[in-house]
Amino acid sequence: MEEELKSLLQDVESLQRSQTKSPDSIDEKVVRIMNLAKTGASRRSKVKDMSAEVVDSNPYSRLMALQRMGIVENYERIREFSVAIVGIGGVGSVAAEMLTRCGIGRLLLYDYDTVELANMNRLFFRPDQVGMTKTDAAVQTLSDINPDVVLESYSLNITTVKGFEIFTESLKFQGSQKSGRSTGVDLVLSCVDNYEARMVVNQACNELGQTWMESGVSEDAVSGHIQLLVPGETACFACAPPLVVASGVDERTLKREGVCAASLPTTMGVVAGLLVQNALKYLLKFGQVSPYLGYNSLKDYFPTMEMRPNPQCSNLACVERQNEYIQTKPARDAAAKVKVEAEASAATEGPLHLENDWNISVVDDTEMETSNASSASGALPEGLTHELPSADKYPESLVVGEASPVVDDLEDLQRQLDALNAL
Amino acid sequence: MEEELKSLLQDVESLQRSQTKSPDSIDEKVVRIMNLAKTGASRRSKVKDMSAEVVDSNPYSRLMALQRMGIVENYERIREFSVAIVGIGGVGSVAAEMLTRCGIGRLLLYDYDTVELANMNRLFFRPDQVGMTKTDAAVQTLSDINPDVVLESYSLNITTVKGFEIFTESLKFQGSQKSGRSTGVDLVLSCVDNYEARMVVNQACNELGQTWMESGVSEDAVSGHIQLLVPGETACFACAPPLVVASGVDERTLKREGVCAASLPTTMGVVAGLLVQNALKYLLKFGQVSPYLGYNSLKDYFPTMEMRPNPQCSNLACVERQNEYIQTKPARDAAAKVKVEAEASAATEGPLHLENDWNISVVDDTEMETSNASSASGALPEGLTHELPSADKYPESLVVGEASPVVDDLEDLQRQLDALNAL
Repeated sequence: MEEELKSLLQDVESLQRSQTKSPDSIDEKVVRIMNLAKTGASRRSKVKDMSAEVVDSNPYSRLMALQRMGIVENYERIREFSVAIVGIGGVGSVAAEMLTRCGIGRLLLYDYDTVELANMNRLFFRPDQVGMTKTDAAVQTLSDINPDVVLESYSLNITTVKGFEIFTESLKFQGSQKSGRSTGVDLVLSCVDNYEARMVVNQACNELGQTWMESGVSEDAVSGHIQLLVPGETACFACAPPLVVASGVDERTLKREGVCAASLPTTMGVVAGLLVQNALKYLLKFGQVSPYLGYNSLKDYFPTMEMRPNPQCSNLACVERQNEYIQTKPARDAAAKVKVEAEASAATEGPLHLENDWNISVVDDTEMETSNASSASGALPEGLTHELPSADKYPESLVVGEASPVVDDLEDLQRQLDALNAL
Repeated sequence: MEEELKSLLQDVESLQRSQTKSPDSIDEKVVRIMNLAKTGASRRSKVKDMSAEVVDSNPYSRLMALQRMGIVENYERIREFSVAIVGIGGVGSVAAEMLTRCGIGRLLLYDYDTVELANMNRLFFRPDQVGMTKTDAAVQTLSDINPDVVLESYSLNITTVKGFEIFTESLKFQGSQKSGRSTGVDLVLSCVDNYEARMVVNQACNELGQTWMESGVSEDAVSGHIQLLVPGETACFACAPPLVVASGVDERTLKREGVCAASLPTTMGVVAGLLVQNALKYLLKFGQVSPYLGYNSLKDYFPTMEMRPNPQCSNLACVERQNEYIQTKPARDAAAKVKVEAEASAATEGPLHLENDWNISVVDDTEMETSNASSASGALPEGLTHELPSADKYPESLVVGEASPVVDDLEDLQRQLDALNAL
């Protein structure tokens, strides 16, 4: 296109000089460029409803099929959800693309960085976006992919005072929606690459009582994790030091000044996939939402565990949410009992979905949502180690306290890891 | 851009009519469009060597860092490798993008399908590519992302006689390379979505003695797997019926005529990530290459196992490769002994890398490459079931025969699954 435009410019210049040349050839050229631009810029129009019709032109047919196959009860609900993604890097950008392609209602994107060629070893950004802010580049790509998604971009640093204020205000903003949520979003996904930013997301979510999921990839690029954090109900990020999947390399060594962290599109793609899969399970209520899932790519080992909140947590908002959670326990128990009874009586009345052509029943929500019974233990499953923060900023957070891995899982994992280590 | 060009066209038309209007404004507009076009169409130039320099403009800095961190001994070797990807759909396209961003030397892409809006719920393809062949669209996107990768695209159906011939010839073609390979590629990745195409890839690889990796995602979109196949050494695709990660849904039910399979960008992204990670471990010799890895997303459960070849396999080329493998065993054992002795004497001489600034040693190849000791057993790990082929085309393949899961792993996996099922 550049060549054609150069030639057009020359023609216009010669026109300026002569004023006698016929402009017909210019006209033709501009029409040709218009056609070129049209082909390149064709965007699909917005759709009003998600159709399950099986035709090539339906962007949602393969997602709506999740209903017919008994995986999700009501897929179209996804359009009602708002998700905030903090950090649009190797994990966050792919997470944003996955949610966009799934037809999420609204995405809020936060980052302050710009796209560099050094980011090209991870998915999503393109060399022609170098120099753009990551949020602008993401909006450009995502709005082309799915114009149905409402995109909000915030090019700011959440670790500054001003940035933190805008961040929390944007999470709180509910607009004219009547959603029954306490904030304006259903879930926050943390995809940042440093300890400080994670502590800031933790602070905001504890203050707002906002459920969030954390993700991370080790600096040697070969392990990662995702974690669900429900203020008051699970450990917050300050309750226990962050965990890393042990990969035989001392994390502290990797944090030396001037050392460039390694990264791989594979590890980051897997972590983004596990994160958004967990988010979809949480939002659309199918399968089991993982409280913690690690990924050690050298051994293809995936440890899992649960962590209870620490009553001595240094984060005051976390302790407040814990107290609220304890106080509301009787009401929760009563509601759960009513639900179980209602489902038990529904079960005797017949199948869950009378219109179910394939006689496949939807996975039972109550079974899936029941969390593992856990007993107190300070030990971590083998394969996981604590990642020590480099600063002494939050020394209290190093007390593991009530963090309680599920012992049944733990023993199995230990046996499995011993077997793997013995190879 | 379309709006600007429309306005320019109007100006040119009015110029045609009047011939008196100053063309200055047109000139300015064209210059602005040129600048716009320049930003949009900028492509990075090819690079001669992979640099480890830590600067924003280096697309390989984060990959070369894998060497400094002791994960990979020689990352730049990736430029010598050729990988063929069969099936450029939800898994294959993402696998191709990952390898392209990793700087693979040469990629061969096979597909006969065109891009549809119905594919937009998976990563990679864009709405403006609808109607293009998947191979053309992939080459368009991948060459923009990384011009250093040599891309070859084959828009053909490998299950036709003519397609199969071109497929095998293209795998065999070595060009002027002196690689020491028996074929022209180092690895074939199968990312097809049906049984017939998998049997065709299996046939070609058995005939050529070509190591390949198979991948798949279940039709209910919530589970998947990857598998390593080394002709003569591991089970081929016809030795045992294909395995699926049990998800509680009968696969045969899902294969009814006219039923639209569900798909999710998350599951496919995870499977592509696990597949390419396994490919990188195999090619660059780090970590443990997984013989089989399943992914059940509903429970975040990842079963693994090994399968020995079946001496009664219905595939004659497989049986030939098995016989060759047995005949070359004494030579392999001798070579392995020499290697172990050489490494043992090197170990007494000092660290593997004298120039190693960080005193981090590279993962020991011999330990990593040693495969699990396995004993004969016909049982499958819990969580895996056989996927029965719908046709009776390969009835002999249903004999499990010598397929031998690793018993240590199996028992652990069974315990873990029992614990999970008991929740």
